[in-house]
Amino acid sequence: MDGQEPVDPRVLRTRNDVLRTAIEILVADGWDAVTQPRVARAAGYSKATVYAHWPERADLVRDALARFGDMPHHEATGDLRTDLIGELVSFRQGMLEHRLDRVLAVLAERAPSVPELVDVRTAFVADGERPMRERLGTVLSGARLEAATVMLCGLVLDAALLHGAPPTDEVLAAAVDLVLHGIG
Amino acid sequence: MDGQEPVDPRVLRTRNDVLRTAIEILVADGWDAVTQPRVARAAGYSKATVYAHWPERADLVRDALARFGDMPHHEATGDLRTDLIGELVSFRQGMLEHRLDRVLAVLAERAPSVPELVDVRTAFVADGERPMRERLGTVLSGARLEAATVMLCGLVLDAALLHGAPPTDEVLAAAVDLVLHGIG
Repeated sequence: MDGQEPVDPRVLRTRNDVLRTAIEILVADGWDAVTQPRVARAAGYSKATVYAHWPERADLVRDALARFGDMPHHEATGDLRTDLIGELVSFRQGMLEHRLDRVLAVLAERAPSVPELVDVRTAFVADGERPMRERLGTVLSGARLEAATVMLCGLVLDAALLHGAPPTDEVLAAAVDLVLHGIG
Repeated sequence: MDGQEPVDPRVLRTRNDVLRTAIEILVADGWDAVTQPRVARAAGYSKATVYAHWPERADLVRDALARFGDMPHHEATGDLRTDLIGELVSFRQGMLEHRLDRVLAVLAERAPSVPELVDVRTAFVADGERPMRERLGTVLSGARLEAATVMLCGLVLDAALLHGAPPTDEVLAAAVDLVLHGIG
């Protein structure tokens, strides 16, 4: 949406307010609830303002998700076990505190039928996985790197999305130890 | 829905037809598309018939999912590596051929806001995981069993739902080998 010209600070503020509100509604009530009229009302702007910025609903959700992507990550210590567990704990924290579980569920459920979302999902997931992939990449490559990265991220995802709660500390540590012993 | 009295075969056939159609619509077009009028039209029954069996939409989807849960599993050979890879290949096949990926995405996305779906999700996931959990249970217990089961299932889930395609044979084998070497 932003062109090459300098952006008016009021426009930036409006965009920030609206996108933050859109994510809140997405997390609370799902994809269908994120409509321009509802977001406008909740953010305290006119419908016309929101429609002017995002004529298409899918673009509004896409921009909101792109903004949401900046999740906290564990700060690396250099000890692989500590850093892998720390990264999984950060992922779990994102699920619990930022409702990343809801956002990932919406991306999983909607991307197959909303083409605009496929690129958002790809970028969002690649960004989220990057620290885990980089740390494992110091000791693994190829199919083994892919397997270990997606298994460890998949553990948190599967537990949060399909078991109703992300894994305990004990399970996270057991998973990292299985993988590290497996690497040998 | 079924009481204690013997069920009329015509009623059973109607229920089967309607539930099969409901899953087809769920997989193709998502939760919101599964309405009594749409399912009735697609299955060739009157709206009144479908409403008589399922006055609530959530109950219609719940019964359809319960019926869908009977997924093919790998037949055990007794060799743990072969059986774990076989089970993951069956899970992947469910994703690709039966669109289990779509069903799991809908369960993940909707269960938090549709209370009737939580028990369906729990039963569905427990049934799906059982063979993997039983096979790993011959060599693991406690947190390590939980970690290994959910990591391996989570690998297929994460790849299918968030990477857009389930894992290759090479990645599945690498995952099983990492876990088996980790068990030591």
